[in-house]
Amino acid sequence: MHPIGANTWIWVSPLTDARLAALAPRIHAWGFDVIELPVESPGDWDPDRAADLLAGLGLGATVCAVMSADRDLVTDDAEVVRRTGDYLRYCVRVAARVGAGVVAGPMYAPVGRTWLLDADARAATVRTLRDRLRPLAEEAAGAGVTLAVEPLNRFETSLLNTTEQALEVVDGIPGLGLALDTFHMNIEERDIPTAIRTAGDRLAHVQVCANDRGAPGNDHLDWTGIVAALRDVGYDGPLCIESFTAENRTIATAAAIWRPLAPTQDKLATGGLAFLRALLARIGPATGV
Amino acid sequence: MHPIGANTWIWVSPLTDARLAALAPRIHAWGFDVIELPVESPGDWDPDRAADLLAGLGLGATVCAVMSADRDLVTDDAEVVRRTGDYLRYCVRVAARVGAGVVAGPMYAPVGRTWLLDADARAATVRTLRDRLRPLAEEAAGAGVTLAVEPLNRFETSLLNTTEQALEVVDGIPGLGLALDTFHMNIEERDIPTAIRTAGDRLAHVQVCANDRGAPGNDHLDWTGIVAALRDVGYDGPLCIESFTAENRTIATAAAIWRPLAPTQDKLATGGLAFLRALLARIGPATGV
Repeated sequence: MHPIGANTWIWVSPLTDARLAALAPRIHAWGFDVIELPVESPGDWDPDRAADLLAGLGLGATVCAVMSADRDLVTDDAEVVRRTGDYLRYCVRVAARVGAGVVAGPMYAPVGRTWLLDADARAATVRTLRDRLRPLAEEAAGAGVTLAVEPLNRFETSLLNTTEQALEVVDGIPGLGLALDTFHMNIEERDIPTAIRTAGDRLAHVQVCANDRGAPGNDHLDWTGIVAALRDVGYDGPLCIESFTAENRTIATAAAIWRPLAPTQDKLATGGLAFLRALLARIGPATGV
Repeated sequence: MHPIGANTWIWVSPLTDARLAALAPRIHAWGFDVIELPVESPGDWDPDRAADLLAGLGLGATVCAVMSADRDLVTDDAEVVRRTGDYLRYCVRVAARVGAGVVAGPMYAPVGRTWLLDADARAATVRTLRDRLRPLAEEAAGAGVTLAVEPLNRFETSLLNTTEQALEVVDGIPGLGLALDTFHMNIEERDIPTAIRTAGDRLAHVQVCANDRGAPGNDHLDWTGIVAALRDVGYDGPLCIESFTAENRTIATAAAIWRPLAPTQDKLATGGLAFLRALLARIGPATGV
């Protein structure tokens, strides 16, 4: 059975030590196995304190890299590329410290930057990205962490929208994998279970939410087909509910959340958890071979 | 059976007399019943020539209003509101001239403008919009044309994302209706057939495409459920395929089309047409009461 996780963006942005200290026990008490921790700015929260807090609760962790406007691995600006590399290395150290096996995120360009690319420009950009990710992935692998590259929907990036496009980036590079998010897949993939099967053993992380970014369940995604596909590719990692509060100006604007997607953010998390547990129970454990 | 239409944005932007003269016979020859004509700038194409051309072919028409950055009905800038009203009145005259029963589009704010609104600000903005649409709708109704207000997905507007929000705008105002587009609904509505039923008899126009904005069919939308819901609300107007070419810089950027969504744009149109015809034939005509 997949562990189930909750991203702290469901409630807060940015994460701080005090916010984490308040949230983690509640997330654990509701029955989540994993807490997903975004690193907006290094120093927002202390990985040592977080590690102690989560160990005390018995709560697992995953880490998200955040590609703000000042972070970019495909720009011509060498200084920005260098600083983005430093940032991702920091995320890897944080992940290792809190026991997370992945750093997930769109680690290529700032979220919201879109630009036209013809086939040649795209190929050149993918080569550049691979060259710049390779040493970072090697370092991450040395720390037991996978960099999980996340395709985003067309309004958030023009570079990697589909599983197929993201596979071109990670192909043949150890320490890289894919992070797939049902919200983006709902827009970009004509058949989500097929896209998961295409990711195959490169799938390193899964984020889930309804097609409108609310709690998974009672929406039009084919959840049974999605879980079956995850089983087919041997993915046994967490399903992390990622959504965003409409009550926080910064995160609402960044994620284009203009209306509440649940009666409360707590209900979004607990409703999603209940749905996922029931879904996994109904489908039952994978049979061994 | 619904007439099936094709939007000229599948191939070109902006539409011109020459482009229309080249496209309309092809669209007719493929078997479409309707051509959907965007009005990007008044004067791009001549409504009299278009009317003659379409009459000669026996091709129906629908008209799309385009909300570019300079058009806005909810701004404080009275001059912009006045010019937007003039533009929409021009669209109505064009519609009447080419025999279109609707002008469809997000006739409230520029596409791509998003801004945070609390509940009070939203209510005030909706009131303003209703006040400004009312006289335009009255004029349109006098010309036999419905202004069909289109909710867009969250990345293209923050004002009207859902059927429910758009209904608040058109409620009780004759001459206004809703335009629903499966691409936006896929992102915003947890249950598309239910959203269509919510629109009820205010539904005035329907645009269709796959969840990735390619040809309808072989995608994850519930097309049978969608057609059943259209029947339930008594909508018997056209289903217009709206997509955009990735080959035209302007329209590709405006619509966030970064990859081809079909082998060719012709195949997108003809494949979508074949799928829709087969779907409607399978479901059969509505039984009379």
